[in-house]
Amino acid sequence: MKTDIEISQNSELLPIGKIASQLSLGEQQIEPYGHYKAKVTLPVANQDTKGKLVLVTSINPTAAGEGKTTMAVGLGDALSELKYKTALALREPSLGPVMGMKGGATGGGYSQVIPMEDINLHFTGDFHALTEAHDTLSALIDNHIHHGNQLNIDPRQITWKRVLDINDRELRHTVIGLGGRTSGVPREDGFDITVASELMAILCLSRDIKDLKERISQILIGYTYDRKPVYVKDLGVQGALTLLLKDAIKPNLVQTIEHTPAYIHGGPFANIAHGCNSIIATRAGLNTADYTVTESGFGSDLGGEKFMDIVAPRLGKTPDVVVIVATIRALKLNGGAAKDELATEDLAALKKGAANLGRHIQAMQRYGKPVVVAINDFTSDTEAEINQLKQYVTDNFHIPSVTCYEWAQGGKGAIDLAKEVVKAADTPHEFKPLYSNHDSIEAKINQIVTNIYGGDGIELTSKAKKQLKQIVQNDWDQLPVCMAKTQYSLTDDASVHGAPTDFKIHIREFQVKLGAGFIVALTGNVLTMPGLPSHPAALNMDIKDNGEITGLF
Amino acid sequence: MKTDIEISQNSELLPIGKIASQLSLGEQQIEPYGHYKAKVTLPVANQDTKGKLVLVTSINPTAAGEGKTTMAVGLGDALSELKYKTALALREPSLGPVMGMKGGATGGGYSQVIPMEDINLHFTGDFHALTEAHDTLSALIDNHIHHGNQLNIDPRQITWKRVLDINDRELRHTVIGLGGRTSGVPREDGFDITVASELMAILCLSRDIKDLKERISQILIGYTYDRKPVYVKDLGVQGALTLLLKDAIKPNLVQTIEHTPAYIHGGPFANIAHGCNSIIATRAGLNTADYTVTESGFGSDLGGEKFMDIVAPRLGKTPDVVVIVATIRALKLNGGAAKDELATEDLAALKKGAANLGRHIQAMQRYGKPVVVAINDFTSDTEAEINQLKQYVTDNFHIPSVTCYEWAQGGKGAIDLAKEVVKAADTPHEFKPLYSNHDSIEAKINQIVTNIYGGDGIELTSKAKKQLKQIVQNDWDQLPVCMAKTQYSLTDDASVHGAPTDFKIHIREFQVKLGAGFIVALTGNVLTMPGLPSHPAALNMDIKDNGEITGLF
Repeated sequence: MKTDIEISQNSELLPIGKIASQLSLGEQQIEPYGHYKAKVTLPVANQDTKGKLVLVTSINPTAAGEGKTTMAVGLGDALSELKYKTALALREPSLGPVMGMKGGATGGGYSQVIPMEDINLHFTGDFHALTEAHDTLSALIDNHIHHGNQLNIDPRQITWKRVLDINDRELRHTVIGLGGRTSGVPREDGFDITVASELMAILCLSRDIKDLKERISQILIGYTYDRKPVYVKDLGVQGALTLLLKDAIKPNLVQTIEHTPAYIHGGPFANIAHGCNSIIATRAGLNTADYTVTESGFGSDLGGEKFMDIVAPRLGKTPDVVVIVATIRALKLNGGAAKDELATEDLAALKKGAANLGRHIQAMQRYGKPVVVAINDFTSDTEAEINQLKQYVTDNFHIPSVTCYEWAQGGKGAIDLAKEVVKAADTPHEFKPLYSNHDSIEAKINQIVTNIYGGDGIELTSKAKKQLKQIVQNDWDQLPVCMAKTQYSLTDDASVHGAPTDFKIHIREFQVKLGAGFIVALTGNVLTMPGLPSHPAALNMDIKDNGEITGLF
Repeated sequence: MKTDIEISQNSELLPIGKIASQLSLGEQQIEPYGHYKAKVTLPVANQDTKGKLVLVTSINPTAAGEGKTTMAVGLGDALSELKYKTALALREPSLGPVMGMKGGATGGGYSQVIPMEDINLHFTGDFHALTEAHDTLSALIDNHIHHGNQLNIDPRQITWKRVLDINDRELRHTVIGLGGRTSGVPREDGFDITVASELMAILCLSRDIKDLKERISQILIGYTYDRKPVYVKDLGVQGALTLLLKDAIKPNLVQTIEHTPAYIHGGPFANIAHGCNSIIATRAGLNTADYTVTESGFGSDLGGEKFMDIVAPRLGKTPDVVVIVATIRALKLNGGAAKDELATEDLAALKKGAANLGRHIQAMQRYGKPVVVAINDFTSDTEAEINQLKQYVTDNFHIPSVTCYEWAQGGKGAIDLAKEVVKAADTPHEFKPLYSNHDSIEAKINQIVTNIYGGDGIELTSKAKKQLKQIVQNDWDQLPVCMAKTQYSLTDDASVHGAPTDFKIHIREFQVKLGAGFIVALTGNVLTMPGLPSHPAALNMDIKDNGEITGLF
């Protein structure tokens, strides 16, 4: 069996100008980066949206992932095969996980965006530009304090940490500014991974350069000794930071193995941030294609909810149809089957676990959206299992469910799904928002917990209560909430699978992201800087003298 | 008067394919990055060298610089105007100084490489790829220790620091690995600026991917508890690190305002490293042009010497002619004139200061090389001053000196220089190396101090003596020496100007760079992480809603 990179390397690539012309983008609207990648100039993204939008989300994922990106790519190729002008709008991979454990994020098998080695390694430099802009702001803050601290910033209350696009646990907690009078002011600090940077969230939620600069100027960087908020605009460096992102804000264009155009742009942490590609890229898709297929991070309880409540209002468009990806394996795990027995038929576990899928369908239907279930085929799935799952979906929700073979077959393995998606996208329906921004922060979270997670309330630590008071005092409570919760469970306990009831969500802490325009509610212990495993993927990678690459996956 | 960025923005850019075709590079040999930048595929750089090589160096510079890059660009344009097929081979700017004080590094006035805003901001991402590779190695080292430390690495003896392409004094000295059992092992660390990374020096001294990987595997990262050296190859991650540099190693092609092709590639710190653009870029020039104009960092005592002793052997070619850039202002300063009186005619100070130029001429002649002096015109220079300086050069060295107006006039302001350069480059001569790698480290440094600086010996601290012992024990003393010395003086004291005699150079410390293939000899206090000034350049920068950029210089 060929590896993903072997399939990618053996695929024929069309010149990027040809891919662009499929979307009626002319020479002057693209900036080539090599022969097979391009940035698209901005005006495209600022026109009105007109195409249909397909949101791909999933059940609570397992550690291996449920193949959501693979499904999105396969669906895009299938729609192309049905002669619809189609574009993908996906996130860029982060180099931290690429070098660590997860590998790349460009789909798999015959449903990949290519050239996968370029997309997974630096791509067009967007993440590096974000790292540079983020840490330049850090340097400017510390430099301000070093040169007299006119703004009276309290070094103990700086909330703007540093970032690197690397999995490096060693940098989570640091002390900086050591070395005496000429080397800054000693203080505690730490590094997050670049995808967790508020600048990443801002880039992905901005409509244009003007919006980007305004949002950057609003970033809260910390507090003065007398507890007054300090913003980027107080330092006066929003111009320089926006300048550093002048190219990063332009969406990137590549292609799938079957030459469907793919906008790949931005990749905010699905945990601490909203976890969806840039709205500029999605708008570019909506403007240039009949169908735009996008995905959101983790399950529908996380990325799906955030897409509806945070992204859609900025995008100016809600999905015309939602695809929920499920695997028989993951549902059996959710039903109590052991991790090492997922390849064995287990109808009882599947029956129990299917309730997890049910919850995700209900959550997306809560927004008034047509839903289609995509069952991502594994060779270990039995006919009896597949039939039982389909029956469950039909009996309980009267919506279509389709088995998909996009990993092994590319677009033609997802043709049936594409047909159902087209049908569902034409269903008249009305979007029902979950909450109003005028609701209190607690009310917003309660809506999410009861309607999406299936829980029955929230509990705040005393720290969170104190922070909430400050949020209200500063008039920041009119912002939407961005939940930071484990992706493995509908609860805040990663070990609780299936469709639990009678649980509360525990809010440990709030983080104020005024540039991104949301309040992060942290539940449990959320890591914003991953570590590397004992045998990092980096150890398997190589490049031969002739430039041939191995070990990337 | 127009600013540099205004001149750049008002210049007509030719499509990069047209620039490439001037060097007979076809479509398949370039990878466009936007419409006006490209990477050149490697095979070009691996062929034999055949063109003439012009090395531009200078007297001891002042804080403002003597316009060496501007002169190199003007000379390139002048050679083009004389109908020679010409290429520039220059260094890439670092974002740290761009955001800080120095500004960009793309020439000035009508002698610039363009688009200057792109070259100064991220360019094609080479420096970011180096930062990523460097810090990925750091993370892999700490991760190895965290997961059991099989190699027995002593965290107190790790010599591989972290880097960022930012001027950030706050990160010079840090403590990392805090936060308990799951967040690494506490230890002292610190950040250098990316251009000071050994990976940058390696990239610039490598001939191809194979060479790059071999050099990376040789990097010394620290010592075990029982003081044995630990190399990158012991960690087995040279493949992954090389992979991260697969595009960074390809030279970048841009153009001057007058459309002379310019390879801009790499930029090692001229202080702690050798300070010259990549040999791959210079070889690309030698292969594709009749004349390649390159420059080395700081004065001929630093970059010039390093070009001859470190770069030329790897390049497989020595310069056919050396151009030494001087300004009347800087020579007057060297002759004792006050900083704020350099605009006033002062023949006595100039006479005294001219001896500094004399030393640099002697140094380059020591290598057997034809030398041409280029006087970079300033409006404050008087005719009497210029005549006196030219007379000094004629009387003492019988070599040509030419006044140049390339800043105000572009190539035609350097036509006279170009004619003298062509004449000198055709002079038959023989290269005389300064030392043999079989000489001891002390003997090598002595050669540099006595022949190039004009001093009379060296003194080692006890620390340096101890390190030298270790260097000899490990058989590392067959490597060339890379001097780290102030650029403002021929001595190791920045305040000593002119042409001092009877001085010793004090070696404080050695650093072993086995990947780059040299031993760094540190004199005085060399900063490898600059700080930002009280009013950083970043405060003046802006980008308007329409994308127009201001405040970059």
